[in-house]
Amino acid sequence: MSRSLNRKQEIYKIDWQLPAVSSSASAHHISRDLFVLSYGALVAQLCKDYERDEDVNKYLDAMGYNIGIRLIEDFLANTGIKKCRNYNETVDVIAKVAFKMYLGITPTMIGGNDGGNGFSLILDTNPLDDYVEELPSGRSSLSYCNLLSGIIRGALEMIHLPADVTFIQDRLRGDDVTEIGITFLRKSDEKKSKRNK
Amino acid sequence: MSRSLNRKQEIYKIDWQLPAVSSSASAHHISRDLFVLSYGALVAQLCKDYERDEDVNKYLDAMGYNIGIRLIEDFLANTGIKKCRNYNETVDVIAKVAFKMYLGITPTMIGGNDGGNGFSLILDTNPLDDYVEELPSGRSSLSYCNLLSGIIRGALEMIHLPADVTFIQDRLRGDDVTEIGITFLRKSDEKKSKRNK
Repeated sequence: MSRSLNRKQEIYKIDWQLPAVSSSASAHHISRDLFVLSYGALVAQLCKDYERDEDVNKYLDAMGYNIGIRLIEDFLANTGIKKCRNYNETVDVIAKVAFKMYLGITPTMIGGNDGGNGFSLILDTNPLDDYVEELPSGRSSLSYCNLLSGIIRGALEMIHLPADVTFIQDRLRGDDVTEIGITFLRKSDEKKSKRNK
Repeated sequence: MSRSLNRKQEIYKIDWQLPAVSSSASAHHISRDLFVLSYGALVAQLCKDYERDEDVNKYLDAMGYNIGIRLIEDFLANTGIKKCRNYNETVDVIAKVAFKMYLGITPTMIGGNDGGNGFSLILDTNPLDDYVEELPSGRSSLSYCNLLSGIIRGALEMIHLPADVTFIQDRLRGDDVTEIGITFLRKSDEKKSKRNK
């Protein structure tokens, strides 16, 4: 039973004006602060639950993977993107379309020029660690944003592009930049020859 | 060392056009899907970790509390709201400003007309459970969106308005509507008399 049924009900309709500086979330977006703080609370909680950084990293990666395998459907449906001709194009779509669409940033893509299967995404800004100045003490191996690499890995796997995705550098760990490495597990030519079969 | 330093570097600058149907996140917003799926992955993981629904609910509430005590600063800074005259106004701000700003929805407020300290927010839509059709089997006591009540509780506590905040009804549990109950722990007149001291 609803508590509200037990007392005099009246629906208030005061006309609150939204303050001019506030930014209201739309049907497709929510406040970045809410997400970033929620993510921070998640990582903090995991650090309480798991002593070893590797375990927290694994947990975040696994969670990310589960998000990625769902998010890819949404991504393909919303963008209408069908097929990339090669790994190069795939990573370019991740950087310029997916990151832009979901996080509002566009990482710089490095690599792939040699027809190889190793790429990097350089994140100049990273909304996920907006509120984080440094890693908690004793947590120097924590890969704070490991959810992101898990998401990419999960999404790629769903479109039959298995890949290793890891944070190679992380500004929070004292590196100059934040770099996500994507190494496709099938060689480019294997991919082609498989297609030609 | 960055892997990228070990190979020929070339920064690609292909002009990808964002597909017309996609919606890019802005500086203040991120994709709702990303948040909703991340939240779903969190709850799913907690259900794996904790057998009892109450423990999952407690965990979500505790996480929410930690978010709320941070989010309130952001909220006050962005809206410029200073003080509400009474509980009624406070809950109205939560419904019409905070929910709108962070989740893009405006719940209906019920109660408070009798000068009492019990209120309800009725959520007609709830972005958090967008992808959830029903609770997992054997999880009938799960309060899936318990993060939200924790956030409200934490935020209110930071502005010295301690309150019990709980999901009284939940559509996911078979109720007709989703209802968050807010009961302020100090009576309205206590609040006034305290002010007059």
